[in-house]
Amino acid sequence: MTETVLSSPAKEVVIGFDRPFVVIGERINPTGRKKLAAEIAAGNYSTVERDAADQVAAGAHVLDVNAGVPTADEAKMMTEMVQRVQRLVDVPLCIDSAMVPALEAGLAAYDGKALINSVTGEQESLESVLPLAKKYGAAVVAICNDESGISEDPAVRFAVARKIKQRALDHGLPAADVVVDPLVMPVGAVGNAGRSVLSLVRRVREELELNTICGASNVSFGLPDRQGLNAAFLAMLIGAGLTSAIVNPLHARVMTGITGAEVLAGLDNRCKRWMKRCRAQQQTRAA
Amino acid sequence: MTETVLSSPAKEVVIGFDRPFVVIGERINPTGRKKLAAEIAAGNYSTVERDAADQVAAGAHVLDVNAGVPTADEAKMMTEMVQRVQRLVDVPLCIDSAMVPALEAGLAAYDGKALINSVTGEQESLESVLPLAKKYGAAVVAICNDESGISEDPAVRFAVARKIKQRALDHGLPAADVVVDPLVMPVGAVGNAGRSVLSLVRRVREELELNTICGASNVSFGLPDRQGLNAAFLAMLIGAGLTSAIVNPLHARVMTGITGAEVLAGLDNRCKRWMKRCRAQQQTRAA
Repeated sequence: MTETVLSSPAKEVVIGFDRPFVVIGERINPTGRKKLAAEIAAGNYSTVERDAADQVAAGAHVLDVNAGVPTADEAKMMTEMVQRVQRLVDVPLCIDSAMVPALEAGLAAYDGKALINSVTGEQESLESVLPLAKKYGAAVVAICNDESGISEDPAVRFAVARKIKQRALDHGLPAADVVVDPLVMPVGAVGNAGRSVLSLVRRVREELELNTICGASNVSFGLPDRQGLNAAFLAMLIGAGLTSAIVNPLHARVMTGITGAEVLAGLDNRCKRWMKRCRAQQQTRAA
Repeated sequence: MTETVLSSPAKEVVIGFDRPFVVIGERINPTGRKKLAAEIAAGNYSTVERDAADQVAAGAHVLDVNAGVPTADEAKMMTEMVQRVQRLVDVPLCIDSAMVPALEAGLAAYDGKALINSVTGEQESLESVLPLAKKYGAAVVAICNDESGISEDPAVRFAVARKIKQRALDHGLPAADVVVDPLVMPVGAVGNAGRSVLSLVRRVREELELNTICGASNVSFGLPDRQGLNAAFLAMLIGAGLTSAIVNPLHARVMTGITGAEVLAGLDNRCKRWMKRCRAQQQTRAA
């Protein structure tokens, strides 16, 4: 029974095989959001704060925080954002950056056990990120690519996941603190992208006994009705054993897909969360 | 590569492992529809005909026809309904009755290769329905219960499916003409109902190498927002390898869940059906 425990001063969130599915809010990220990037660069964090509050209200259990604004001091902004978000909401955070100094700044500023997003199978990444996870007692997202890039072959990606798990153990991390991201490619470009991820999630769970995480929305890139596709994909992934995902919790159809899939995967005791969600939606419509 | 071929004079529909998912329209069934039952008993088939046309327009590949009106001559009505539906639409039919004489009347009236709904693992059912399938060259839905009832243990239901497959072979039917229905119980009453069916679908496909079918909507009985749950469940089932289902194709969210899951299971070449569905929905909204 693999359990990845994340925490803030007030809350503990457990990603686990027989646990409720963990939703990680993706919104606090300036990538592809020019207006937000400009605000952050100018020291204006009002959108960041609104995104934090809105996502938690919509059901996010953890928030991803990414401060990747080009040409700016990412480490400094990460510190500022982590502190502000943590003052505002009480959920654990996922510290997200491609830059090791920004990861370290976020971890140093964070009070609790964070999730690091991410380490890859590349030597440089393994040797810089895993020691950080050890130093700060954080869990880490393990992305299934390495120096050779992102393979379309699920067997190659599985081998990368296995390697990262082993390297994490070598660095003294508990296996349960490695959460594997099988890497979701757009199905419009790579026809077997969905199928590959479904089989990887199953294998990582059964053979490596690790938790899994997905940035699922990438699957629908370039296609119409992305929410409809993402909702179906998340339901399928939960059926295959996925234990967490980075999504936009403000997308109601996606959250309905997730909550419904939990009922059907036997993860929603007496359907309580489903009924609560339906009641809340009725009230929203009535208001 | 298991393929179950159904046909009408104009169309062939193949249920198969790497084929588009087959949607069987459930509407032509007086069970629980008092008004429809009264119409049929009075010899009025206007609703039956409208249901036939509407379901095909909404994307059904096959139509289920059930004439089960209590106290009426079911065999006579089945004959009438099969003939009328077949004059109106060109998709193959699924002849659905708990009464063997009604099944035989429907098969005799039908022009093409039908699907019989259904045989169970009970001795009496096996000995009466399998010879009919052989005589009329029909495929048959194999429901996973027997004299001992419906087991909550998926291993018991799997054993029933294996038994029906063997008995069908003994009667000279090809294995591919047995389509297994794992039996869906309401998840509100049986907490592991969804999970059981997911594991059964996978095992029937991998170990028995048979196609599968589900009356999926039963899973949400008694719960709010049934379409939302059914859509999530069908996506999960398609992810687990389900190849056909009996559903209401007029439920747009359920059909979106199915079509989306096909994209992600790699069953929608170049996402063509998904894009066609999105365009059609845009036109409906614009009209």
